Amino acid sequence: MTQPITLVAAPSNTAYAAARQLSDGQAKPLGALGELETLGAWVCAVQGACPPRQLDDVRVVVFAGDHGVATSGVSAYPTEITAAMVAGIAGGHAGVSALAAANNVRVSVHDIAVAVDFPQLPQIGRHKVRHSSEPIHLADALTLAEVEQALAAGDEIAAAEIADGAQLLIAGDLGIGNTTIAAALIAATLGISAAAVTGRGTGIDDTTLNHKIAVIDAALDRVGAARLADPVDRLAAVGAADFAAAVGFIAGAARRGVPVLIDGVIAAAEALIAEDYAPGTKAWLQAGHRSTEPGQALALDRLGLVPLVDLKLRLGEGSGAVVAVPILRSAVAALTGIAQLSDLG
Amino acid sequence: MTQPITLVAAPSNTAYAAARQLSDGQAKPLGALGELETLGAWVCAVQGACPPRQLDDVRVVVFAGDHGVATSGVSAYPTEITAAMVAGIAGGHAGVSALAAANNVRVSVHDIAVAVDFPQLPQIGRHKVRHSSEPIHLADALTLAEVEQALAAGDEIAAAEIADGAQLLIAGDLGIGNTTIAAALIAATLGISAAAVTGRGTGIDDTTLNHKIAVIDAALDRVGAARLADPVDRLAAVGAADFAAAVGFIAGAARRGVPVLIDGVIAAAEALIAEDYAPGTKAWLQAGHRSTEPGQALALDRLGLVPLVDLKLRLGEGSGAVVAVPILRSAVAALTGIAQLSDLG
Repeated sequence: MTQPITLVAAPSNTAYAAARQLSDGQAKPLGALGELETLGAWVCAVQGACPPRQLDDVRVVVFAGDHGVATSGVSAYPTEITAAMVAGIAGGHAGVSALAAANNVRVSVHDIAVAVDFPQLPQIGRHKVRHSSEPIHLADALTLAEVEQALAAGDEIAAAEIADGAQLLIAGDLGIGNTTIAAALIAATLGISAAAVTGRGTGIDDTTLNHKIAVIDAALDRVGAARLADPVDRLAAVGAADFAAAVGFIAGAARRGVPVLIDGVIAAAEALIAEDYAPGTKAWLQAGHRSTEPGQALALDRLGLVPLVDLKLRLGEGSGAVVAVPILRSAVAALTGIAQLSDLG
Repeated sequence: MTQPITLVAAPSNTAYAAARQLSDGQAKPLGALGELETLGAWVCAVQGACPPRQLDDVRVVVFAGDHGVATSGVSAYPTEITAAMVAGIAGGHAGVSALAAANNVRVSVHDIAVAVDFPQLPQIGRHKVRHSSEPIHLADALTLAEVEQALAAGDEIAAAEIADGAQLLIAGDLGIGNTTIAAALIAATLGISAAAVTGRGTGIDDTTLNHKIAVIDAALDRVGAARLADPVDRLAAVGAADFAAAVGFIAGAARRGVPVLIDGVIAAAEALIAEDYAPGTKAWLQAGHRSTEPGQALALDRLGLVPLVDLKLRLGEGSGAVVAVPILRSAVAALTGIAQLSDLG
C-alpha cells in the first residue's frame, strides 16, 4: 500500500479555545449564535489566530475532466458538454461565475483531463494529465504514474493559490460522467454497494440509473477489494485524473494550513480520499452544501461534516460551496463585531 | 370582528413566469440550481420585473418592547436586559450589528414599548406606544387603541424605509419575554395548545418551561376563543405593542410591494397575524432561518414558508434572516449572470 504522504498537522486547539472564550464573553445569551459560534471557532483554529482574520480572499478552483464511462450511457448529456462548460467558466458566464461574483469569490479552471484541448486558452491546460479516462467497468481509468502526476498538479495549484493570498479554497468539479466516478470512489472507500451511493446526477431516468449502478458494480468487481484499499490505486482503478488533482489540491491546502470548503458529491468523494491519502486533512474542511446525490451524505458522515446549506443545487462547479461562503464570513463577523459583556460594565 | 385593512395585491405572475423561462433557457441542466431558481423567480414576482434588480438595499428594523409576563418567571434574563440590548444595537455592537455589517444590511431600532425611556437616543422613541405591557395571564396586554397605534406606527416605519430605498425588509425583535408572547400568539392563531408551541427561548430549564406553558394556557383561557379569533383583539389580549408594530410593518411592506424576510419565532408569529390582518401578505414573504422554537415551524407551515438556513441561532434581533440575505442575492445573481444556451450557439 502506498504510504500516506505525511500526516497533516492539526488546527490550533489554542485558537479554538480562545474563540470559545471570546464568544462566551460576548453580550448575548450563551450559545445564542449556534452553529456560527462553532464555525467561528473552527476558522480561528485553522487560522491559528483569535480573533480571526476576515475571509476576504476565497477562491474556487474548478478541475475539469472527461470520463470514459460517459460514453457508456450513464449520463443525460454528451461528453461535448464538458468542453463547452470549460469555455463558459473561462468566459465568466457559467453558473459558478455568476454565484462567485455575487459572493466575492474568485474562479479559475484547470483542464486536467478534458477529451479535447483548448489552444485558445493555453493557461488552463498547463497541468493537463491526459485526454479523458478509460471506462472504469472495462479497464483502469488511468495509470499509477498519471495519478501521481495529477496529485502533484493539484498540490502545485494549491501552493500557487495560497502563495497568491488565498484564505479559503473550494475544489469545483466539471465533467460529464463525474457523478458516476464519485459514486464508484465513495462505494470503494466505504466498502458499500453502488446502489447505496448512486444518484441521478444531472437528471437521469430509472433505466439509466440502473445501468449506472451496474457499471459501477462491474468496475468494483473488476478491480477487487485489495487494490481498492489503497487511495492511489483506487484513483487509478475507478477514479480519474481530475479527481486525483482535486485530492492533491485538498490535501495540499490542508498541509499548508489553509481550509477548504467542500461542495457536492464530487468534492465529498475527493475529500474522503484526501483523508485516506493525507490523514488529518478532514480537520481543515467544512461542507458547504447538501447534495441531492446520496453518496455525498455517506462521505460527509464518514468525515464528520455537516453541510451549511441545503438548496437542492446539482450544478457542480463548486457552486453550492460558493453560496455557503457568506455563512463563514458571518461566523467571523460574529466573533469580531460583538461587544464583550465585561466592556459594557 | 375587525375588517382586514385591505386585501394585499398578489406579486406578478408574469414576472414569475418570465424568470422561470429565463432560468430554463440558461446554459445549465434544467433545474440544476434548485431552490435558487424558485427564489429568483419569487424575487422577480415581488419586484414585478425580470430580470430582477440586485438586492443592494436591505434593512432590518428592530422592534423593541418589554412584556409584563417577563416578571412572572418565564425568562432566563431580567427585563433590564432589554434596555441594554437596545443600547447595544443603537451603538452598533450587538449581534445583529456585526452580522448585518458583514452582509451589507442596514440596522435601525425602534423603542415601541420598552419599560424605560432612552432620553439620549430620542430618534428611536418617536413611535413609542407605551411602557411594557400587562402580564397576559392576568390582564389584556394593551388596549385596542394601543394596538391600532402600534399597527399604524409599523406601517409608517415601513413606508419611510421604502421611500428611502429599501428593497427587502426584515423585522427584528428585541425584548425579554418575547418568546412567551410569540408562543401565545401562535397558539391562539392556530388554535393549538401552549405545550405544542412553547420552547426554551434564550435557555430556560424544565421547571421554567412548564411554568411558561402554564402562563400561556392561563392567558388563552382568560381571553377565550371568540376574542382570539380577531387579529387586532388577539394582539391586545395576548400580544404586545412591539409585535403589533411589526405586524403593521410586515403588512405595510407587502401592501407597498416590498418583500420581507422572516427571522425566527417572533417574526413568524407576527407574519401569521399579518396574514390574518391583511390577507395576501404571505406571498410577499420568505423565511430566512429555522428557529429552535417549535412554534416557528408551525407558523411557517401555515404560511407555506420554508427557511433558507438552519444554523441553530436563537439570538433574535433579526439575526437569522440577516445571515440568509446572501442566498437571496445569489438567487438574483443566478438569474442575471448565467448565459442563455441560445446565445452560445
